[in-house]
Amino acid sequence: MENGHAGKHRVAVIGSGNWGSVASRLLASNTAKLPSFHDEVRMWVFEETLPTGEKLSESINQAHENCKYLPGIKLGTNVIADPDLESAVKDADMLVFVTPHQFVEGICKKLVGKLRPGVEAISLIKGMEIAVEKFSEATIGYREDKEAANRWAKLFTTPYFLVAIVEDIEGVELCGTLKNVVAIAAGLVDGLDMGNNTKAAIMRIGLREMRAFSKLLFPSVRDNTFFESCGVADLITTCLGGRNRRVAEAFARNGGKRSFDELEAEMLHGQKLQGVSTAREVYEVLTYHGWQELFPLLSTVHEICIGQLPPTSIVEYSEHTPNLSFVGGSTPCY
Amino acid sequence: MENGHAGKHRVAVIGSGNWGSVASRLLASNTAKLPSFHDEVRMWVFEETLPTGEKLSESINQAHENCKYLPGIKLGTNVIADPDLESAVKDADMLVFVTPHQFVEGICKKLVGKLRPGVEAISLIKGMEIAVEKFSEATIGYREDKEAANRWAKLFTTPYFLVAIVEDIEGVELCGTLKNVVAIAAGLVDGLDMGNNTKAAIMRIGLREMRAFSKLLFPSVRDNTFFESCGVADLITTCLGGRNRRVAEAFARNGGKRSFDELEAEMLHGQKLQGVSTAREVYEVLTYHGWQELFPLLSTVHEICIGQLPPTSIVEYSEHTPNLSFVGGSTPCY
Repeated sequence: MENGHAGKHRVAVIGSGNWGSVASRLLASNTAKLPSFHDEVRMWVFEETLPTGEKLSESINQAHENCKYLPGIKLGTNVIADPDLESAVKDADMLVFVTPHQFVEGICKKLVGKLRPGVEAISLIKGMEIAVEKFSEATIGYREDKEAANRWAKLFTTPYFLVAIVEDIEGVELCGTLKNVVAIAAGLVDGLDMGNNTKAAIMRIGLREMRAFSKLLFPSVRDNTFFESCGVADLITTCLGGRNRRVAEAFARNGGKRSFDELEAEMLHGQKLQGVSTAREVYEVLTYHGWQELFPLLSTVHEICIGQLPPTSIVEYSEHTPNLSFVGGSTPCY
Repeated sequence: MENGHAGKHRVAVIGSGNWGSVASRLLASNTAKLPSFHDEVRMWVFEETLPTGEKLSESINQAHENCKYLPGIKLGTNVIADPDLESAVKDADMLVFVTPHQFVEGICKKLVGKLRPGVEAISLIKGMEIAVEKFSEATIGYREDKEAANRWAKLFTTPYFLVAIVEDIEGVELCGTLKNVVAIAAGLVDGLDMGNNTKAAIMRIGLREMRAFSKLLFPSVRDNTFFESCGVADLITTCLGGRNRRVAEAFARNGGKRSFDELEAEMLHGQKLQGVSTAREVYEVLTYHGWQELFPLLSTVHEICIGQLPPTSIVEYSEHTPNLSFVGGSTPCY
């Protein structure tokens, strides 16, 4: 990465909703302290006119606070709101994407030809949750360029937010995606009132299948990635809270009689569950390769989602528990 | 193992409390089905006289039910209660210990010279929880003799209770012990109301330290063991429910002003928390080897337990998070 302006990296945040504001605040606090970064963090604002008649970007720059999406919290005087996308990114060599995922493609198209050479980007859109000043963690996956990965980790790390890097992009990505399918399984167990023992067993079997599935698809995937925050910790968080878990619980409480679509519409106000669509995509991959029997939990979640199996099936696949020892699983006894 | 009586294995259960009765029921259901086992399961009963004047062992053999410790559940006609320890074990070649741990030593002394040659024993005293007919799992650790391990696994496996075997006795044992220390950390987070994100992070860091500590003590310990039921699943169960978590939560809610001893006495009616004493023992090992800085979570739990640090310290060790990459951890960024 080229590193202009007296050798200091410049950060731009694409997005200024609740998450974008939280990220800008954290980053600005770090860039102010770290000598290798320019203090200023540019935050691209999708411009709105506030009820007062003021523009959102102007309000942010005056009050150093996003009064609409993160009221009551100071962002830091070095967060500069900019309603012009091209101007917001033109000096940056590190871009942080924090917009709703449906806007990413359109934004990227607008950025073509407008960026500095060698610019790097990171996405916080999926998987990363930064609890405000509460201790938490995240994992950054990278390929080869450890120096760049370390630079990003440094930019995000705070005493309450630990960031680790792992050389396993596919593993990190698949953890972020597959955990939502396991969260559906965990939610079904909650809805069936089977207790923590059963839920923990299902989460573990889910983690095992996540690992085996990832390693079958990408032999480069490492076991250790599943011990990282993106693995076991995010899985636990998603299976304890999270909307996939919540809607699946409601699905099981209704005995599968109300569809996921219906419950989603009612409970999530138009948002879609990642887990249901991921389960379908995973099922297609499993079917294509003839792997369904190797992944009873992942398969069963999809078959429950589409109403082919009842919710209780989530704990009824023991008789065909597969031997996953080829990817490092133990040998279950039959 | 010698295998007398027409080649069939004979099982005796040492203990007939709630757990002992649940185990006897499960085992008897399996021995009745499995051709390599003698149907009968002898259950040693610490004899008591019931309010009706009847002996507990006689009542069990008449009603096929332990009306005192597992009322309302049929044990199976092939469970034979025996109040005479020597007689209960004399034909058995597989012993299952399910007594309160303080009685084990005394019982073992009485068994010296009374057992058949080559007899094998398993302990269900710590770590294994068999939810009645709810889906759950367990791990059996073994050394070298895979055939024996498989025999035990077969004896315990049911469609709702999956048993896996791993060639890593030390790893399985240490999982069972160390998880209680992590559960104290998780309980402290609950008591501080820090939410699921923080709790999941602490559980993951705990799992990482469990793994690193085990591997430092016993280089033979395997990473995979921590993906087994005895690792991640039991850790989750213990950190969601469990008395270590519960008392630690109360400790944090009281700001550390009431001691663990006091809270234990009040909440557990004389039972002692495994986690507090294990944390002390682990701390002694860490101090002896000069390893405290490598294991901030395990160390901090002990220092909180003895009142040397406040409960909030559980989330304040990020600045000295160690590099555990020598046992396969990722490199955190500082």
